[in-house]
Amino acid sequence: MRWVCFLFLAAVLFPAVSSRAAEAPLSEASQACLDCHAAATPGIVADWRLSAHARTTPAQASQKPELERRVSAAAITPALAGAAVGCAECHVRTQGGGPDDFDHEGRRVHAVVSPRDCAACHPDEAGQFQKNIMSQARGNLARNPLFSDLAAQINGGLVFEGGGLAAQAPEPLTEAESCFYCHGTEVKVIGRRTQHTDYGDFEFPVLAGWPNHGVGRLNPDGSLGSCGACHSRHQFSIEMARQPYTCSECHKGPDVPAYPVYQVSKHGNIQAALGKSWDFRPVPWTVGRDFTAPTCAVCHVSLLVDGQGEVVAQRTHQMNDRLHVRLMGLVYAHPHPLKPDTSRLHSPDGLPLPVSLDGRPAGPQLIGPEEQAERRARLEKVCLACHSTSWVKGHWARLDESVETSNTLTLTATRLLAEAWQKGLARGPAQGGSPFDEAIERQWVEQWLFYANSIRFASAMAGADYGVFAQGRWQATRNLRQMHDWLRLRSPAGKE
Amino acid sequence: MRWVCFLFLAAVLFPAVSSRAAEAPLSEASQACLDCHAAATPGIVADWRLSAHARTTPAQASQKPELERRVSAAAITPALAGAAVGCAECHVRTQGGGPDDFDHEGRRVHAVVSPRDCAACHPDEAGQFQKNIMSQARGNLARNPLFSDLAAQINGGLVFEGGGLAAQAPEPLTEAESCFYCHGTEVKVIGRRTQHTDYGDFEFPVLAGWPNHGVGRLNPDGSLGSCGACHSRHQFSIEMARQPYTCSECHKGPDVPAYPVYQVSKHGNIQAALGKSWDFRPVPWTVGRDFTAPTCAVCHVSLLVDGQGEVVAQRTHQMNDRLHVRLMGLVYAHPHPLKPDTSRLHSPDGLPLPVSLDGRPAGPQLIGPEEQAERRARLEKVCLACHSTSWVKGHWARLDESVETSNTLTLTATRLLAEAWQKGLARGPAQGGSPFDEAIERQWVEQWLFYANSIRFASAMAGADYGVFAQGRWQATRNLRQMHDWLRLRSPAGKE
Amino acid sequence: MRWVCFLFLAAVLFPAVSSRAAEAPLSEASQACLDCHAAATPGIVADWRLSAHARTTPAQASQKPELERRVSAAAITPALAGAAVGCAECHVRTQGGGPDDFDHEGRRVHAVVSPRDCAACHPDEAGQFQKNIMSQARGNLARNPLFSDLAAQINGGLVFEGGGLAAQAPEPLTEAESCFYCHGTEVKVIGRRTQHTDYGDFEFPVLAGWPNHGVGRLNPDGSLGSCGACHSRHQFSIEMARQPYTCSECHKGPDVPAYPVYQVSKHGNIQAALGKSWDFRPVPWTVGRDFTAPTCAVCHVSLLVDGQGEVVAQRTHQMNDRLHVRLMGLVYAHPHPLKPDTSRLHSPDGLPLPVSLDGRPAGPQLIGPEEQAERRARLEKVCLACHSTSWVKGHWARLDESVETSNTLTLTATRLLAEAWQKGLARGPAQGGSPFDEAIERQWVEQWLFYANSIRFASAMAGADYGVFAQGRWQATRNLRQMHDWLRLRSPAGKE
Repeated sequence: MRWVCFLFLAAVLFPAVSSRAAEAPLSEASQACLDCHAAATPGIVADWRLSAHARTTPAQASQKPELERRVSAAAITPALAGAAVGCAECHVRTQGGGPDDFDHEGRRVHAVVSPRDCAACHPDEAGQFQKNIMSQARGNLARNPLFSDLAAQINGGLVFEGGGLAAQAPEPLTEAESCFYCHGTEVKVIGRRTQHTDYGDFEFPVLAGWPNHGVGRLNPDGSLGSCGACHSRHQFSIEMARQPYTCSECHKGPDVPAYPVYQVSKHGNIQAALGKSWDFRPVPWTVGRDFTAPTCAVCHVSLLVDGQGEVVAQRTHQMNDRLHVRLMGLVYAHPHPLKPDTSRLHSPDGLPLPVSLDGRPAGPQLIGPEEQAERRARLEKVCLACHSTSWVKGHWARLDESVETSNTLTLTATRLLAEAWQKGLARGPAQGGSPFDEAIERQWVEQWLFYANSIRFASAMAGADYGVFAQGRWQATRNLRQMHDWLRLRSPAGKE
Repeated sequence: MRWVCFLFLAAVLFPAVSSRAAEAPLSEASQACLDCHAAATPGIVADWRLSAHARTTPAQASQKPELERRVSAAAITPALAGAAVGCAECHVRTQGGGPDDFDHEGRRVHAVVSPRDCAACHPDEAGQFQKNIMSQARGNLARNPLFSDLAAQINGGLVFEGGGLAAQAPEPLTEAESCFYCHGTEVKVIGRRTQHTDYGDFEFPVLAGWPNHGVGRLNPDGSLGSCGACHSRHQFSIEMARQPYTCSECHKGPDVPAYPVYQVSKHGNIQAALGKSWDFRPVPWTVGRDFTAPTCAVCHVSLLVDGQGEVVAQRTHQMNDRLHVRLMGLVYAHPHPLKPDTSRLHSPDGLPLPVSLDGRPAGPQLIGPEEQAERRARLEKVCLACHSTSWVKGHWARLDESVETSNTLTLTATRLLAEAWQKGLARGPAQGGSPFDEAIERQWVEQWLFYANSIRFASAMAGADYGVFAQGRWQATRNLRQMHDWLRLRSPAGKE
Repeated sequence: MRWVCFLFLAAVLFPAVSSRAAEAPLSEASQACLDCHAAATPGIVADWRLSAHARTTPAQASQKPELERRVSAAAITPALAGAAVGCAECHVRTQGGGPDDFDHEGRRVHAVVSPRDCAACHPDEAGQFQKNIMSQARGNLARNPLFSDLAAQINGGLVFEGGGLAAQAPEPLTEAESCFYCHGTEVKVIGRRTQHTDYGDFEFPVLAGWPNHGVGRLNPDGSLGSCGACHSRHQFSIEMARQPYTCSECHKGPDVPAYPVYQVSKHGNIQAALGKSWDFRPVPWTVGRDFTAPTCAVCHVSLLVDGQGEVVAQRTHQMNDRLHVRLMGLVYAHPHPLKPDTSRLHSPDGLPLPVSLDGRPAGPQLIGPEEQAERRARLEKVCLACHSTSWVKGHWARLDESVETSNTLTLTATRLLAEAWQKGLARGPAQGGSPFDEAIERQWVEQWLFYANSIRFASAMAGADYGVFAQGRWQATRNLRQMHDWLRLRSPAGKE
């Protein structure tokens, strides 16, 4: 009895110690890394020690019941199976090789861990992610001439000379810390350098586009993406990926105000007020027990079950798998493109866009009504865990309406801009100019990239203020009034 | 001894189990609901199980000492007294009836629970709320022709045709998800529909204006408001209502930046940094022990006591019970209106406003100096729990000053707009136009609805940045300079 | 055995009681204060009871090992050494005297505790803070004629008369709650007043500029600053000062968006998601164990060690001790000024600025390359605890680039403004006008005070959105396009 008592007490009093005791065995290679790096980069090592990777082996992880399993590989390479997922398991190359490999203390090491590395244990997730439009985020910007021009107009310098503003090409370092910070840089080896350290001199590759953890990063090994964008190194905490702060790294600004909208929604309120008592770690994740309101991951990513263990939603790393309409980033909302590489889309008016400037969609390149209905039904099943059918129907009806009305407001802005181009008050593509540089053109961009986006997000997540006064219909209609006012000022003789 | 040890251990190790054990007995009707709904809507049921409603009976709740009591009914209906407040206690009608009732598994059920339902146990709170200006939020917008026009100009479509912008009437679905999302929709039955489910076919009413939990919702039973706006279903957590995130659902945008101002205040800083160790559940709520800085509820709603149990503030659900001046939402700050229905106010210049456009208040329709002093004293008593008299005096002096100076800036904007109207540069009411559509009129609205509001909130809650660069005096004076600049551009011959 | 079991249980079950038991002995004087104030100002007293000041004596605190020590005085005055740091220890004067002293219940009391008072136990911190540019925040604004004019244009009234806008001088109460709220007011005694209380009549000094806890407050005793700006009274919690919410009180608006940038950075994400499990209290503060991502204090203030107890960074209260370049608040980014009093700087073009309007720095008044390198190295050592050298090099390269490109954009805005002045479209200093009042001048100010600042913060803390669409390069280039557009509108004949 006394010993039982002590054991219980130990579990209560020393939880930290207990969890440390659960560390999995280390491979010889990883132990060799830690011998120096525990002192050389103490923060990284301490962070990794808190990870699931440090506390389990792939072999153990594979034994879990299917719904609880986090590794998806049918069979784990024997070399990886029996030890913790330590430094060497991800950073040391045991076969093949990549352009960023370098010899380091007798091993072949690479700094940039890519989805291809993670796929050794998580192939399903890596595969889903390649169908995710996010994996193409870099190319969808860099290879689309229209959006490349937009980026250049934003990131380039402007000099006032001869009474006019002369645009300069953006610096690569500026591009890497602005658009491509989230979209992903191209990381490549551009040389070698020798570094003096307390442990001797080492030769390391010099990487361009580094650091970066953008979702569409082009890695030295040719793969796309960075799992670390959401599964932040080196703790790779599912607890973190499931909280909305992770998504807000890239989805917070006026161009994609998903997180601010969530914050003012009822769901966001519940998460802020009560989320500290939720359990963000269990797999599968149980509605009502582990959490009582959705975060981003609940609706868009996670494997969910109800209290009886019935599956509410399957895990997906293709983020639009439960989304029937693309709300943001483009001139008009539209059904999702069929393929994640959107740089090859061409709209009826011949532009690299899913919808023409006058609002006609690029039909067969987008998902059809059936696929839309299936995706909507998958998300709806999540809603229905806590809401009645009539509640959900009412919600969707509003979203459909706001997609239509926000698109109409954008069309009005486009017509105002066309009038400016036609009257020679600004120079658009037909006049040999960029559609993104002049003041009136900037207002047009804000109409769809800021205001129409925001109206639709507000509708989709029930964060009303972002549909009205916080970058919503107030700003959308004010912007149209200002564009019209400017046209009258510049062209007073024109009919009004 | 050993058993004592075990009992103690059990309490430490299994707190969740213990609290579950405390569930109150269920009525037969509620048990019948749960028989299906635990599987049909698992999230709702799981959430409710975490509520105080699931863990106590009204009879038990009525026995508590007066200050600890959360039910205010002098006597609870015997039918309700002895069981947990489950599904049936709120959703099943035992007497009377409403237009949204429907027959469901042998009982008379309604989906839209209203303050009239809650008043069975909480009549005092329901009564206070009816004196709260929020309960009239829908009508104060919908029945005021001036504010209805503002809403229409924001939410309606705009089409560019014939060189001009043509305004369209807003869609009801748009209205329901924009202004009326917070102000409250009119929820009414517009038909019946049959739904196929795993449990058979059911007939349900079709509701217009649904879903909605706006504070001024017009319910099918004719009552006003939704307690769920703040006491979010189905946990109805006081812990949640007392945290600022609840208020921020509606009070965060540029039109009413209460929450952002709070966040940058010293109080907001303390809550963010230390609030996770506070206890948001006790009734009454003890200053210094349960919390060490105010949230919205502390100053405006909650029953507060000090460490000796002396009452610092009585509970109120009339939110302006501790507010002597109305800072937001109107053209000028002014003493609170006498009645919560503000749609019948008429200003000296004949408008449905508490203050005329040239700044003269609608005297007898507003509270007088004595009532103002009493309300201020009630709030002051809360301040004085942690601040000296000279601190509080200094604080009030600044608020008085900022009310005056922000009103003066608004008067200047109004005069600039009047000049534009008079010179024919825009069309106001006297010229047969809306005062809310044209670009210069939008700037006038932002002067009072965004900037003057923000300056006063910043002053009231000591969140300085919102009085200066974050939508404060910088924006207010910039706006006036821009309005004046526009007047000069449009009317270059005018004297400057 | 049984007793051991009980003792362990007690520690588990009654932590609050245990920590209360640890209260340090009170001086007779402080006990006398509490006799009334526990009831008169219960919140203050309850808050103080939670402080380290209430639970230890300076004598005990002095005995700690050097790295754990929080008091820096070589010797503590015997009068202070043996009792808790209670009311009297800070508020009762035992020697000397100040203009805000007053007789209260037989003792000489002062309300405004200043850094001079805190220096009795914390002289090193007080000394560092005097070298901190923040300690001069009031004078650097009030004594700089250029910035005083900016403040006056923001805070003063504007009246529309005779077709023009007439500026009025700002009210002192307005100044105290706007710029000087953060920069610090001048607190001075302007009279005496008698107050009736439950405990009798008392005479208190009347203080102007009160309340205030600005970092550069001018105290009645002539000292500068308020430790309470960050170490919020009366808990003076290190846990609070180390969380980013404290800094966000003043560093959140568009003029200094440090906190919003942090929030969207990877570091901010980790803090929001996982910070609730960190320990913000230990001194020294261990990287990787106590926290796994930096807060503001980690990079800029705190004493840090690694898991082996090796010092990573020394504590400093001179906030730019680890900063080689000044990113914000001025027209151009520049090496930090040599002295904290910046009101005496004069730029090559004769203005009270560190850099002339055409971008030439005031060379010898700013720190040189060697000092810059040392400061950068100190911060870099913090980065290197969790990041590789190549990661850190890549990060710095981008910051250097963004300093340069943002300065260039500001130069373009300055040239556009100069054109407006030269053509008589606005009145600058050479034309006898303020450079801060007219609409086009406001746009120039926003170019550097809002957009260039934000671009650099985004770069410094890797919060990309604030460098692009959230007040970054999008807004910066849009602003330049709008300024140019306005020039064309006002001066259509000018060459473009």
